[in-house]
Amino acid sequence: VPGLFAAVSGRGAAAAETGDRSILQALLDVEAALARAGAAAGVVPAAAAEQISAACVADRFDLDALGREAAGTGTVVVPLVRALTAVLPDPAAHYVHTGATSQDVLDTAAMLVAHRALPPLLADLAAAADRCAELAEEHRGTLLAGRTLLQQALPVTFGGKVAGWLVGLDEARGWLAEVADRTLAVQLGGAAGTLASLGPAGPAVVAGLARELGLAEPTVPWHTLRQRPAMLAGALGTAAGVVGKIAGDLVLLAATEVGEVREAAGGGSSTLPHKHNPVAAVAALSCTERVPGLVATMLAAMRQEHERAAGSWQAEWETLPQLLRLVGSAAGWLRDALTGLQVDAARMRANLERTGGLLMSEAAATALARTLGPRAAHHVLTEAARGARAHGRALREVLLADPEVRRHLTPADLDAVLDPAGYLGATAQQIDRALRAHEEAR
Amino acid sequence: VPGLFAAVSGRGAAAAETGDRSILQALLDVEAALARAGAAAGVVPAAAAEQISAACVADRFDLDALGREAAGTGTVVVPLVRALTAVLPDPAAHYVHTGATSQDVLDTAAMLVAHRALPPLLADLAAAADRCAELAEEHRGTLLAGRTLLQQALPVTFGGKVAGWLVGLDEARGWLAEVADRTLAVQLGGAAGTLASLGPAGPAVVAGLARELGLAEPTVPWHTLRQRPAMLAGALGTAAGVVGKIAGDLVLLAATEVGEVREAAGGGSSTLPHKHNPVAAVAALSCTERVPGLVATMLAAMRQEHERAAGSWQAEWETLPQLLRLVGSAAGWLRDALTGLQVDAARMRANLERTGGLLMSEAAATALARTLGPRAAHHVLTEAARGARAHGRALREVLLADPEVRRHLTPADLDAVLDPAGYLGATAQQIDRALRAHEEAR
Amino acid sequence: VPGLFAAVSGRGAAAAETGDRSILQALLDVEAALARAGAAAGVVPAAAAEQISAACVADRFDLDALGREAAGTGTVVVPLVRALTAVLPDPAAHYVHTGATSQDVLDTAAMLVAHRALPPLLADLAAAADRCAELAEEHRGTLLAGRTLLQQALPVTFGGKVAGWLVGLDEARGWLAEVADRTLAVQLGGAAGTLASLGPAGPAVVAGLARELGLAEPTVPWHTLRQRPAMLAGALGTAAGVVGKIAGDLVLLAATEVGEVREAAGGGSSTLPHKHNPVAAVAALSCTERVPGLVATMLAAMRQEHERAAGSWQAEWETLPQLLRLVGSAAGWLRDALTGLQVDAARMRANLERTGGLLMSEAAATALARTLGPRAAHHVLTEAARGARAHGRALREVLLADPEVRRHLTPADLDAVLDPAGYLGATAQQIDRALRAHEEAR
Amino acid sequence: VPGLFAAVSGRGAAAAETGDRSILQALLDVEAALARAGAAAGVVPAAAAEQISAACVADRFDLDALGREAAGTGTVVVPLVRALTAVLPDPAAHYVHTGATSQDVLDTAAMLVAHRALPPLLADLAAAADRCAELAEEHRGTLLAGRTLLQQALPVTFGGKVAGWLVGLDEARGWLAEVADRTLAVQLGGAAGTLASLGPAGPAVVAGLARELGLAEPTVPWHTLRQRPAMLAGALGTAAGVVGKIAGDLVLLAATEVGEVREAAGGGSSTLPHKHNPVAAVAALSCTERVPGLVATMLAAMRQEHERAAGSWQAEWETLPQLLRLVGSAAGWLRDALTGLQVDAARMRANLERTGGLLMSEAAATALARTLGPRAAHHVLTEAARGARAHGRALREVLLADPEVRRHLTPADLDAVLDPAGYLGATAQQIDRALRAHEEAR
Repeated sequence: VPGLFAAVSGRGAAAAETGDRSILQALLDVEAALARAGAAAGVVPAAAAEQISAACVADRFDLDALGREAAGTGTVVVPLVRALTAVLPDPAAHYVHTGATSQDVLDTAAMLVAHRALPPLLADLAAAADRCAELAEEHRGTLLAGRTLLQQALPVTFGGKVAGWLVGLDEARGWLAEVADRTLAVQLGGAAGTLASLGPAGPAVVAGLARELGLAEPTVPWHTLRQRPAMLAGALGTAAGVVGKIAGDLVLLAATEVGEVREAAGGGSSTLPHKHNPVAAVAALSCTERVPGLVATMLAAMRQEHERAAGSWQAEWETLPQLLRLVGSAAGWLRDALTGLQVDAARMRANLERTGGLLMSEAAATALARTLGPRAAHHVLTEAARGARAHGRALREVLLADPEVRRHLTPADLDAVLDPAGYLGATAQQIDRALRAHEEAR
Repeated sequence: VPGLFAAVSGRGAAAAETGDRSILQALLDVEAALARAGAAAGVVPAAAAEQISAACVADRFDLDALGREAAGTGTVVVPLVRALTAVLPDPAAHYVHTGATSQDVLDTAAMLVAHRALPPLLADLAAAADRCAELAEEHRGTLLAGRTLLQQALPVTFGGKVAGWLVGLDEARGWLAEVADRTLAVQLGGAAGTLASLGPAGPAVVAGLARELGLAEPTVPWHTLRQRPAMLAGALGTAAGVVGKIAGDLVLLAATEVGEVREAAGGGSSTLPHKHNPVAAVAALSCTERVPGLVATMLAAMRQEHERAAGSWQAEWETLPQLLRLVGSAAGWLRDALTGLQVDAARMRANLERTGGLLMSEAAATALARTLGPRAAHHVLTEAARGARAHGRALREVLLADPEVRRHLTPADLDAVLDPAGYLGATAQQIDRALRAHEEAR
Repeated sequence: VPGLFAAVSGRGAAAAETGDRSILQALLDVEAALARAGAAAGVVPAAAAEQISAACVADRFDLDALGREAAGTGTVVVPLVRALTAVLPDPAAHYVHTGATSQDVLDTAAMLVAHRALPPLLADLAAAADRCAELAEEHRGTLLAGRTLLQQALPVTFGGKVAGWLVGLDEARGWLAEVADRTLAVQLGGAAGTLASLGPAGPAVVAGLARELGLAEPTVPWHTLRQRPAMLAGALGTAAGVVGKIAGDLVLLAATEVGEVREAAGGGSSTLPHKHNPVAAVAALSCTERVPGLVATMLAAMRQEHERAAGSWQAEWETLPQLLRLVGSAAGWLRDALTGLQVDAARMRANLERTGGLLMSEAAATALARTLGPRAAHHVLTEAARGARAHGRALREVLLADPEVRRHLTPADLDAVLDPAGYLGATAQQIDRALRAHEEAR
Repeated sequence: VPGLFAAVSGRGAAAAETGDRSILQALLDVEAALARAGAAAGVVPAAAAEQISAACVADRFDLDALGREAAGTGTVVVPLVRALTAVLPDPAAHYVHTGATSQDVLDTAAMLVAHRALPPLLADLAAAADRCAELAEEHRGTLLAGRTLLQQALPVTFGGKVAGWLVGLDEARGWLAEVADRTLAVQLGGAAGTLASLGPAGPAVVAGLARELGLAEPTVPWHTLRQRPAMLAGALGTAAGVVGKIAGDLVLLAATEVGEVREAAGGGSSTLPHKHNPVAAVAALSCTERVPGLVATMLAAMRQEHERAAGSWQAEWETLPQLLRLVGSAAGWLRDALTGLQVDAARMRANLERTGGLLMSEAAATALARTLGPRAAHHVLTEAARGARAHGRALREVLLADPEVRRHLTPADLDAVLDPAGYLGATAQQIDRALRAHEEAR
């Protein structure tokens, strides 16, 4: 996909499949497959089908001219059929577009574009997940602060954190792949969905078209029942959301004051010589933030009138390719951001200790609760935390100064209690579960 | 769901499950199940779990007061835990909320609300589909105009048209049910997702909680990885879109100038004594039109920071129940609209004939193309259609006056060609396929 | 704007201003104006400013290459500045981009693109409004059915109906023009918004840049405070909504069964020789339906971090031009649809009479209410309407057969009461008010 | 507004005006004003108008029952008019709802609700802006790091940063107030917008209704031309976006690792004794994040059919009050967050110095560029920044070790160049401009 902003929102193979030229080729592929399916069903001569197939090469057509000529009828299929017919000899020319209405070709081509854009998109998601699996294993015990509402809360490990990303990626990817399997189907119904102009051969041509293109055969035409593109849009939106969550975390972890990760490539600034921007994560976010609005457009466009919509269907034409392009680009950017991600374990540890042990207060409260009861223990810690913060002292110090605490815990007990590595709960099992699920998902 | 607009957007059982009192009960059900799961895992005494369970009844708590008190901490779970603790004796009081963070309870309750709202919602969709199946069978051969861009295009049958609705409903319902099966899971991770405060019992408590509530056990906590609610939102949006499409068709078919269907109940007007409004279909539309924006909110809210989000998660709290309520209401209204729908076959036939046979022009072109070739045939019909429209004559008459046509078709041939019932293509098979798929979906 | 779908969503002058090449020229125009403003403020030598200005011609740069090179830094301005510098001799080359950060150039260019796309967009809205004013005057007394919930309700006139469209267009256009006047401003702040690298000359350069480009000078830089593009998006969304309403009405009025208007051009079908589709109105709708989702993207993107956003700002780059393109195309299509719109007054009248006078029932109720009281009158008419519909009789006939009615109204009274032309209320004044407001708005 | 989540999304006076009971009172206020306007125009007896007015008190009606009864006709106005009529004696009862259709009452009530909810909402925005003005003045010279893509970029002052917030709030508030002034109008047109049932008195009743309610008089009825609510939604969305930006910055500044601000109240955690969450900012964000989807719903709902919409208008009923409630709550929360905000200037300074002077590299490059030229200077600094980061040394030290640098700058020069307080550009003027604009906006 060329263009001024292509570097950001038109990244990689998935995006390339959604460019205008790829869509034009998909339209032609549908016309070609239709001719061959017609030949198999006996409504198109075999020779004509071969000639039509051979002519269906995007580079032979003037994309911009086709675009311009579409104005009169409102659909690019009319001038495309005209142009395709014009380059064919009789009688092959007569058999172009047999039995189809413009929407049949546009809808099937849209599904074909998705069919071609999804494998690289899913592969980028899978590669990002693979990288998460490596990071989860490698940083199984790398301590850092768990943060809620951007406040340090409890110690976690980077491996455990990434295990959450991994599960998110795997589930979103799995669902997207499955939804694609189910929803990507051909469209063929003719002018009002009845296949009337094909006579008795109609159903055979539909089946043949599906076979030719490797797409599913729908129960009935879905000209104005858009559950297929809608479910796909929802699954794309979900995948984008997971990508955005991870990219957002990367940007936060790379913030100067946090500094726990760094993109291998990074990006300079036009004016600031010292900048090392998380450009891949930012690019991913710039793509994912555009997705919810487009999904809403796809869902709102489902209100389509009778046998062909007056506007809502046409609103899908550019929207679905854009969705594929943006989610594909986002997945690629995330993969880039994670590949070679530099993890600064020392900085993680240093940040963890910046609160003077305050984020171990739940651990201390839990230990004290065994003998003091939960309410009293929570009270002791709330006071201790307040005191520690007010006087800039470490929690350990404040607790040791409290006779109530000393009655229940020795200094050695307290050290054990305040050790972050000792308060990780089920982190190890969670990492194992995420890795196991990832193995199964591959 | 009480309220001023409840009749429209708060219809039926699905909506009732999403009201504030139902959410409060769900929150309490989670606390109760958590106590029982804790007991099974040995971290809560059995007697305490029983006492906690027994206390978890929404009617015993002041909903509005809880709402008000939530302001200080930003979550209603804090005052709820306080209120629940207050009504329990020691030591049971100490064991309330063991191991959980507020988000664990809110997220699990949200899933529980969905788990309870979806069966009636799916049942309404199924009932609407059943009614479509009846209509498809009954009106298998009832002719009406197929309309594209609101222009009469080709004859179809009402049964064939409804078969499309049926497939839309069945597919959207099937996907929604499946997505729900996969995504509705408990949430339990404690303050930073590690289950630290539960010590080694953590995973057992998660498993127990899932068992107690009939929800799935997730691979790892999903506090900030929101693929589950997002996929659910997408599937709800898809179902809403199908409902909106059908309701939109009903409104168009009921328009005064079309008059082909009529809602059994209908609705009067405050000022117009003669009105018979399609109120159920309109109510369905008023619900479905609000869905895409809410799905976008759910997807945009997926960008959640680190271990707990600062705002985006909280944006889901009212949005997901609203989605369930609106899609549930829409499904209920569509069921109402279809139940007892009055179909005026005579009016359908009369409308079909209003263009003087013009919508049979494709059939005539197809017949002529056999001998004339498609381009010439299309040209003959374009001219004939223009002439018929210009002089207000029937297409048959104009064609019979054309010597070129008469050379290829006898008047009897032409009558056969122009008979709408003879130009229905695969309609019968399509109805059969839709009915078969419906049988399998049940 | 070239491309496969350009005929629909890339129509006309407003769209042309939003293409990649126009955006590139706008970026260069900003660099040129910045150099001249710098010269005026004494921080750039005059000769350098002249050389820079002369070099800023889009055709001299390789758009696709710039797009590709942007990947490393995440913004196209970095390679553009590099390319621009490369074509300049020293010392002019040193003065390219003086004092600016990439966002300054991208934001100012975005405003410039809007500044150029809005005049043709507003002109198309104005032309559509002018045409509405003509139609309102011409069809001041042309009776047709007023329709609520698509049911005939009361007589209105086509002029009165169009007067509503006119007011909608004029208000939306007026607000959009005003919002543009207020919001279209330059952006110049340097790397963190302080203008630090320009030293004391900063404010003078900002003022000069605004003067050079004919844009407003903002109070302070608005790098991450996006009220300007957001308000613009809202006003564009409002204009699109009005266009969509009118286009939707045109499609409904052109429906075969209604047939009250017809687009002069109309559109054929690839398969149906007799079709005369309202293609301009449909194209307008296909554009407007995509607008709400894009406006939501612009609003959601307002959450921008600190002094430059990590993703949300970048999400605006393609979204705002798309919005301008779609609303501009929609306005153009509506203008087309209205220009030469064929209004079938006879068909309007015939449709009005299809209910056998039922839509005059409020008029009859009002007349009877004078002597019978409103409740009794409403009851009489509800019964009469039911009887008329049940037996296929005209309302007049049924009412004349009711002794209660005859006691209050003579047949002549009743004929006067049932004359649609006599029950138009304030229609004439409303048309006058709309036309007067239109005169003032021009 | 009571309810489980009221503390977050139903905060304060603006929200209270959008509750069901307030909407019911607004509906009754419209009926009362309509009766009085009718009396003034001579179509309702003065005594009847007085009796109707006196009866229009929300507490006398059963809100939930009205909601339930609305199901039959699809609008709550029908049962409300019935209930109001039932409590009045004849003949006053006959004059309830004179000349109006349900939509007239619902639309005017919606505008009235906005008219009542906006003053407290605007007051909260103004109070937040006032607080920003104080902070801008007080922290005029308080240094902190300007951050782009969350990377420290250049020094700014907190006063300068807040000046940006101030301008955002003032502009969004000013536009919202202005849009409200223009758009909040009465609706009165009767069943099809012609005011037919009011006879010649129609226009006078409209004018009287506007006068009675303090709302504008529209040029013509706007039943299906929704530019008024749409513009309002856009302006509300813009205000929400500004609030969200500021709240987002507060959350980031309050992050443990940054720690530059702290909410006076803060919020504890149910499990973590040491947490001090920025609950007000988080609550603001949870409201603002729901706004873009709702604005999209309002814009998409503009496609309304003919003289009354079949679904889209009804989709506005709950959406506009929700928008007002959420934006009102967000404004209130932001005001809370800013009131008594604790600013830690020492921490700001300490964070600024954490990069060892790296964020002064642009300043150093600018100084060197005077003699070295920009490209060479940029190169020197890029290398120096790399060296400083790689070896953990201060930028000053690295630069002093570079003979090239020493040739151009003495150590004293360098200290001056590297002083953050000396590289603030136009900050002071920007603060002054923002404060002046704020003075004018009040």
